[in-house]
Amino acid sequence: MKEMNKENDLVARIERAFGAVRKKALPLAFGDDGALWIARPGREVILTCDWFLEGTHFLRDKHSADAVGWKCLARAVSDIAAMGGEPRCFLLSLALPRELTGRWMSEFLRGLRRAAKTLRCELAGGDTTRRDEVLISMTVIGEVKRGGAILRSGAGPGDTIFVSGTLGEADLGLQQLRQMRGMGRPVNRALRKHLYPEPRVALGQWLAKKKLVTAMMDLSDGLSSDLPRLCEASGVGARIEVDSLPATGFARSQDARKLALHGGDDYELLFTVKKKNEARVPDDVQGLGLTRIGEITRDRKIVLQTAMGKGKLLRSGGWDPFREP
Amino acid sequence: MKEMNKENDLVARIERAFGAVRKKALPLAFGDDGALWIARPGREVILTCDWFLEGTHFLRDKHSADAVGWKCLARAVSDIAAMGGEPRCFLLSLALPRELTGRWMSEFLRGLRRAAKTLRCELAGGDTTRRDEVLISMTVIGEVKRGGAILRSGAGPGDTIFVSGTLGEADLGLQQLRQMRGMGRPVNRALRKHLYPEPRVALGQWLAKKKLVTAMMDLSDGLSSDLPRLCEASGVGARIEVDSLPATGFARSQDARKLALHGGDDYELLFTVKKKNEARVPDDVQGLGLTRIGEITRDRKIVLQTAMGKGKLLRSGGWDPFREP
Repeated sequence: MKEMNKENDLVARIERAFGAVRKKALPLAFGDDGALWIARPGREVILTCDWFLEGTHFLRDKHSADAVGWKCLARAVSDIAAMGGEPRCFLLSLALPRELTGRWMSEFLRGLRRAAKTLRCELAGGDTTRRDEVLISMTVIGEVKRGGAILRSGAGPGDTIFVSGTLGEADLGLQQLRQMRGMGRPVNRALRKHLYPEPRVALGQWLAKKKLVTAMMDLSDGLSSDLPRLCEASGVGARIEVDSLPATGFARSQDARKLALHGGDDYELLFTVKKKNEARVPDDVQGLGLTRIGEITRDRKIVLQTAMGKGKLLRSGGWDPFREP
Repeated sequence: MKEMNKENDLVARIERAFGAVRKKALPLAFGDDGALWIARPGREVILTCDWFLEGTHFLRDKHSADAVGWKCLARAVSDIAAMGGEPRCFLLSLALPRELTGRWMSEFLRGLRRAAKTLRCELAGGDTTRRDEVLISMTVIGEVKRGGAILRSGAGPGDTIFVSGTLGEADLGLQQLRQMRGMGRPVNRALRKHLYPEPRVALGQWLAKKKLVTAMMDLSDGLSSDLPRLCEASGVGARIEVDSLPATGFARSQDARKLALHGGDDYELLFTVKKKNEARVPDDVQGLGLTRIGEITRDRKIVLQTAMGKGKLLRSGGWDPFREP
């Protein structure tokens, strides 16, 4: 039949790129009004969605289509990791200019497919349309044991605050990317972390299984933006020991501290543990370092403490699209 | 705590607009990394997403914020109706200019909330960001009895083709809207159907329950675009009796026929029934008319038949964002 139109062609290409093999849990993807997915008994479904927009979240001349494909899924999956869940499938809403439906699209799908395979998150369906700029909205469906999701709201006074990995590295990567000529390549740790972030799915599930954690979230907008959200949800404050932040070693120390406080896009996990369980938190889980960075306080403000000086109040310096420029 | 930023404010406003009451099936919405939702046992989950973009799908100076709020959910829910499913909850990805975060946003939320209530589809979560134009991506989660979803792929040669309601009315409404000065108001049937479409959820469920239907989809891009998709999925063709199309009575008959064939945005249901069951399809379900418009053929092409003349091949004239202008 020759009636099929260009939008159908695009959908067919996406489907082909992901292979026709359908898992038992996903009896129907693309090609119908919706996808069909079977939830496991005894689980709760985690639903999350994330914008990834050209000009706002990435630049077409700096971020390769392959990196855009990887990152749009990876950052959305990070929300599943942040609740201790397991990613299951995703829906891709994609708008793009006609001139990008060729090579750009193929490279985008290559990066996306690699992320889907690595993160064990299957393409279930989506919607495509044409637009002058690349617009992506990613919906990820995950699962977690009934009652087992780790929320932002469970932190209590006295709890110890931990983060995974290194903070500020992705933002350092972004700074390097801006200074580079042409397309960004993952030539060092910082650039790799910015272009190809790795959501902490295994760590999130490990922490959920150990039942060690009272509250958790992922660091997407930077510690200074995200920690207040966890504290707000829990009705508490925090004292952060600035000297203990796992800052990047690739920037001058003053810059590294700023990056660790305010840098976005790290997709590390921020979590709290009851004081008495602090010692049960290992130094690393599968090679990913865990660092104690402070404690939860009853007083509902966030204080930055240095070894030498007095504490000072944190001002959020992370990502906020609605802040006055 | 005064650390919360503008994006948080916006999310809080959305959450407030939808009330803090959480149903048992939705233990956690907004305010965490993801929402938690509990699927019912013995069901399959339907996942669908839909773009609704300023300039592409609506015009800010023609479509009121209230209508945008209603329509962005209604059209996404139509995909659930098209599978015979029951809408359960939705995720709202919303990008908008800073100057629209006031009154526009309130009106948008009013229309969206009314749609959510009418369609029994709860807000589960979402993502907001700033952008020069209003961008909406809507994800709707529905449910259907295990194995009970009506797909596009089940039509067989000899099956009778039906549609619900009237075809082309929404497109007529759009034409009127374009000629009006200022903001569109739902002052007649055509404008009401364009601005405030009513997805056929009850009909879809009724048809699924009666097990009458072999294939079904919703008409979003127009019969001439959508019928080929159903035929392609089923590996069949169709003969349409043009004189029997339930065209609008509010346009000249030639125009009405074109509108019925090519007009988009109707959100009526297109479905097929085995010949022997044709008589079991009533003239209407809860006041919504059902019309026989032709039959499925083995020959994989789509023929338009008039009472007088020879059949002619259908050329798709509906909505395709990637077609050359």
